[in-house]
Amino acid sequence: MTLVALLDYASVIVFAITGALVASRAQLDLVGFAFIACLTAVGGGTIRDVLLDRNPIFWIAAPGYLGAACAVALVIFFTAHLVESRMRAIIWLDSLALAVAVAAGAGVALALVHATPIVILMGMITGCMGGLMRDVVVGEVPLVLKQGELYVTAAFAGAAAAAVAAPHVPDMSVALLIGAAVTWVLRAGSILFGWHLPVYKSRPPRV
Amino acid sequence: MTLVALLDYASVIVFAITGALVASRAQLDLVGFAFIACLTAVGGGTIRDVLLDRNPIFWIAAPGYLGAACAVALVIFFTAHLVESRMRAIIWLDSLALAVAVAAGAGVALALVHATPIVILMGMITGCMGGLMRDVVVGEVPLVLKQGELYVTAAFAGAAAAAVAAPHVPDMSVALLIGAAVTWVLRAGSILFGWHLPVYKSRPPRV
Amino acid sequence: MTLVALLDYASVIVFAITGALVASRAQLDLVGFAFIACLTAVGGGTIRDVLLDRNPIFWIAAPGYLGAACAVALVIFFTAHLVESRMRAIIWLDSLALAVAVAAGAGVALALVHATPIVILMGMITGCMGGLMRDVVVGEVPLVLKQGELYVTAAFAGAAAAAVAAPHVPDMSVALLIGAAVTWVLRAGSILFGWHLPVYKSRPPRV
Repeated sequence: MTLVALLDYASVIVFAITGALVASRAQLDLVGFAFIACLTAVGGGTIRDVLLDRNPIFWIAAPGYLGAACAVALVIFFTAHLVESRMRAIIWLDSLALAVAVAAGAGVALALVHATPIVILMGMITGCMGGLMRDVVVGEVPLVLKQGELYVTAAFAGAAAAAVAAPHVPDMSVALLIGAAVTWVLRAGSILFGWHLPVYKSRPPRV
Repeated sequence: MTLVALLDYASVIVFAITGALVASRAQLDLVGFAFIACLTAVGGGTIRDVLLDRNPIFWIAAPGYLGAACAVALVIFFTAHLVESRMRAIIWLDSLALAVAVAAGAGVALALVHATPIVILMGMITGCMGGLMRDVVVGEVPLVLKQGELYVTAAFAGAAAAAVAAPHVPDMSVALLIGAAVTWVLRAGSILFGWHLPVYKSRPPRV
Repeated sequence: MTLVALLDYASVIVFAITGALVASRAQLDLVGFAFIACLTAVGGGTIRDVLLDRNPIFWIAAPGYLGAACAVALVIFFTAHLVESRMRAIIWLDSLALAVAVAAGAGVALALVHATPIVILMGMITGCMGGLMRDVVVGEVPLVLKQGELYVTAAFAGAAAAAVAAPHVPDMSVALLIGAAVTWVLRAGSILFGWHLPVYKSRPPRV
């Protein structure tokens, strides 16, 4: 199994957990759990594969990804009540999945020898879109758009780090791990310490 | 005309009616009716075709699908006021279109000899995504996510029935009709008698 | 540079400005500005390219489009406060971008010798979907769905004009310019004078 496939599996499983936890907050049934878990788990990678015209899409080539997400949904359906604070668990697991998925997305684009802006964007799309669709479908405020937090920015920095590091390291895996680390440190710092970039607010928005 | 093409046409027309009725509730103009009718009618099948990399997409290969949806929109624009309860009509027509579209989606994946999980998922996507996009775009609560109703679950059961039956029947058409019947019976039972799976509610969701 | 590429660039830049102005109303940070600017700028053309199976997608073939959108986001981040009324600027710039994008979308489909309904639909999709995604993601009421305004209808009329004119003019460019002009005149007339089609309202919507 290549590192990119391993990262894909890891992000699928962690994103599936966040999807199932969000489904538990929305009080869905077991099939609803599986649906949201699958959507979150493979959503970002699916958009990446469609945009890059990779055929077949990764979970059509290997339906095991969907099986893993469904298994996760089943486990969470019966254990979600054991989690002390589900929102807190969702935020932290989401940060891990984001970091792993950004690296996986950048890795796919690097392996296809795309230009640097494309590598960065594929990392951002793979990382951010699964969680965005999860939140939009169940009607929660998207984590990705929370003001004053690093999220898209963390994905951007991590993907850029991977893209910049790639030509300078002996093995692409090193670049991907750097990308995942940069993403996660920035996201975690934002959650813990409120790190953020200055936002636009030179004057109040008008109607 | 193959059975899959026939199912595609039937689901396009019935979904187009639901789309136009939703447009009438949102008080759109004639072009708005046609837009929502087309989106609902071909949305699920489009996502299926993009994911399976079928080229060209079914309504590019045969623009008659769009013509049928627009004709439906025109008729509904002038006749929607004759419908006694539009919401009731939407729910029941949507259940029919769901059943037919699930079978059509599973049929396409079966014909391309995909693995069983892919067949099931393509049935679910084809059935559920058109109506989901219809409801999201006009800002209604998606039928697909209504708590305590079988919708995704009905689509799952129908697609699974078609996938399981396919190798055991003389002709794929029989499997598809079984899939449509299972989907519709479960969905209708849920609407009429409140059939549902247990939902997750071991404790109230936290903020 | 072909006229279609020129139209693509023009619509990317103008849509990017509207995206960045919407981001300023949502008080996002610089990366958020770039994200919304890119989404708005290339969203409609991306859906067009995926549906038509054009590979690679236009901004993967030429990442300069993304660079232009990011440069626009940077400029607007520091100058948005100079705009007297941002909402007014968004609406008018959006009308220009709509007109140009409708022509660009129809031009791509015409060049690929698609049937007339497909040409019209690709014009409408390219014109409308970028702005729709921009508004949905930041949670504004979509311009495209405002009641009693010509928007989808203007896109439809412009795309249809381009499709009808194409076989009758010496050069496709003329047809595209006609399409852009028709779209913009209808949209501008709707903004300025309230032009609209009759909407459906034979009786109030029921619950």
